[in-house]
Amino acid sequence: MTKNTIIAPTKPKLAFELVRPQIRKVEAQIREQVEAFDPEVAPYIDYICKTSGKRIRPALAILTGGALTGQPNSEHIKVGVILELIHMASLVHDDIIDGADTRRDEVTPNARWGNGLAVLLGDALFAHAMTMATDFNSIEICKEVGNASRAVCQGEIRQTQARFDLKLTKDSYFEIIGMKTGALFATATKLAAKVSGADEATQKSLYDAGMTLGTAYQIYDDCLDLVGDENDAGKTLRTDLERGKLTLPLLHILEQADRKQVKVLQSRINEDQFLDLDFMESISPFPPAIHYSVEHGLKLIAEVRQSLDVLPTSKFKDALLSIPDSLEEMLRRCLI
Amino acid sequence: MTKNTIIAPTKPKLAFELVRPQIRKVEAQIREQVEAFDPEVAPYIDYICKTSGKRIRPALAILTGGALTGQPNSEHIKVGVILELIHMASLVHDDIIDGADTRRDEVTPNARWGNGLAVLLGDALFAHAMTMATDFNSIEICKEVGNASRAVCQGEIRQTQARFDLKLTKDSYFEIIGMKTGALFATATKLAAKVSGADEATQKSLYDAGMTLGTAYQIYDDCLDLVGDENDAGKTLRTDLERGKLTLPLLHILEQADRKQVKVLQSRINEDQFLDLDFMESISPFPPAIHYSVEHGLKLIAEVRQSLDVLPTSKFKDALLSIPDSLEEMLRRCLI
Repeated sequence: MTKNTIIAPTKPKLAFELVRPQIRKVEAQIREQVEAFDPEVAPYIDYICKTSGKRIRPALAILTGGALTGQPNSEHIKVGVILELIHMASLVHDDIIDGADTRRDEVTPNARWGNGLAVLLGDALFAHAMTMATDFNSIEICKEVGNASRAVCQGEIRQTQARFDLKLTKDSYFEIIGMKTGALFATATKLAAKVSGADEATQKSLYDAGMTLGTAYQIYDDCLDLVGDENDAGKTLRTDLERGKLTLPLLHILEQADRKQVKVLQSRINEDQFLDLDFMESISPFPPAIHYSVEHGLKLIAEVRQSLDVLPTSKFKDALLSIPDSLEEMLRRCLI
Repeated sequence: MTKNTIIAPTKPKLAFELVRPQIRKVEAQIREQVEAFDPEVAPYIDYICKTSGKRIRPALAILTGGALTGQPNSEHIKVGVILELIHMASLVHDDIIDGADTRRDEVTPNARWGNGLAVLLGDALFAHAMTMATDFNSIEICKEVGNASRAVCQGEIRQTQARFDLKLTKDSYFEIIGMKTGALFATATKLAAKVSGADEATQKSLYDAGMTLGTAYQIYDDCLDLVGDENDAGKTLRTDLERGKLTLPLLHILEQADRKQVKVLQSRINEDQFLDLDFMESISPFPPAIHYSVEHGLKLIAEVRQSLDVLPTSKFKDALLSIPDSLEEMLRRCLI
């Protein structure tokens, strides 16, 4: 595999370079949150808050804020920190559910301290992030943060209950990823607009941009699981199907299965045998399913750009646009 | 065991009879919350919201509100509903941690749907309760609810990390139960005062009343685990020591252990042998430890009554006072 076929996530450089000082503040503020906790609880929170992350949600809030006000300010940074903490709390719980031992080369809280403590640490982070939202002195912001958190949980619940459900529709899949991934992206861009004093229509447009971007990102992530290279991706791949997670390419293949094939799949599930890629490929080859999914992702990316039209031209807008640009590139590489 | 030696929790009749219509509204509103959830998530939430509970937190909010305004209103009820939902969310997660199959004769969410879904359902309930707090249009109320939730989580974290820790001090124990149980009781009485327009000093006094009552209640619950009758209590007892939960009576016994006894205990823990009551009893008999704990609880109850002095005389105040009265009776029965 040559360098240019790597389809692992790459940070859109332009976006992150422009707001590097602000992202550094995000990192510092995430680490500082430990001070809000009981001294005996703090070391655990500290461990979680020292883990790295792409910080895509903070970047979205900061760039949107910059594009609307000319210079990202402390409120945009705070929006980013709060939403990133909620994301981090959800990852702590995700790792329990998936039984994951490592994330980004770090031992997960559940692997380090057991599931019980990890459940409670995620809870404490969740509660803390939602309490932080009150610093804005705006009931509407608290409501948005609460709604986004609830949406993330509900998306995960629906994803969990839809595992191995061969009747899952593409519509349900889109609803699920919209809640699971879209909601926090959308709340990042919307709240950045809100604290910038943008009008309702602008907030709505930016909410849509975030929601659509999050959805496209999740489609990419789902394709990556099927066609990515583990070394490049930096995480274990080919796990979705084994866990019964029916993603867009897999749903596309399932749509083409005849009755007999569905029956075989169903009996494999009933017998607690793992679903496997070979059987799926015997229904229909992967490349067209990936192609379909990538095409859908690209359509969404076009919508993201359209929603971002609401922003005036600026270097921040350009940097923000580099995020869907980069995602488009990542998606296209899935076709190779 | 004759009827009058039953030391199981009993609802203070006077308190609950006076506000029966309001408690019924609490029950109805808890069940109605299901409507705020995604239709595919709703059935799970519905199951959790249909479970019963003593509703002590709502009763505290409603009686405090009645005592301050002459008649409990919808805001007092709402305070009760929000705090009860947070309590319910924490129980969903507790049952995962304890591996409990039933609670109040109902199958627990973790036993019914597995730990993964139960983690997420607790999260969704937490997020929903905190979002509901925004209905008050008061940042301070959101902050209090957030702080109380975080305190509950932190209390549970400290309790979990203190398991089998023979160096746990009584001071730490009191801090833990103050967070774990006291915080929601205190927030119930304080917020009821706040929405009733009470001044800061009154709010503070009622916060103290709730905190002290919650602490005394937890001490009773800890004694019950050691000396209660399972049939009367309606739950499995004698589990604290086995789980390494060092409660006040056990800490009192440990204080009297000599070096050799502590060494034996420590080696039992190191060898993953369960701590057992017989060994604890060989250090020092239980009755004096229970006596010590009950005495401490009674001292706290006297403080609760003192803090409630801030309320004007009324039937609601009398009913509110019947809660510590009833707890005093329950504590005294632990001595028999």
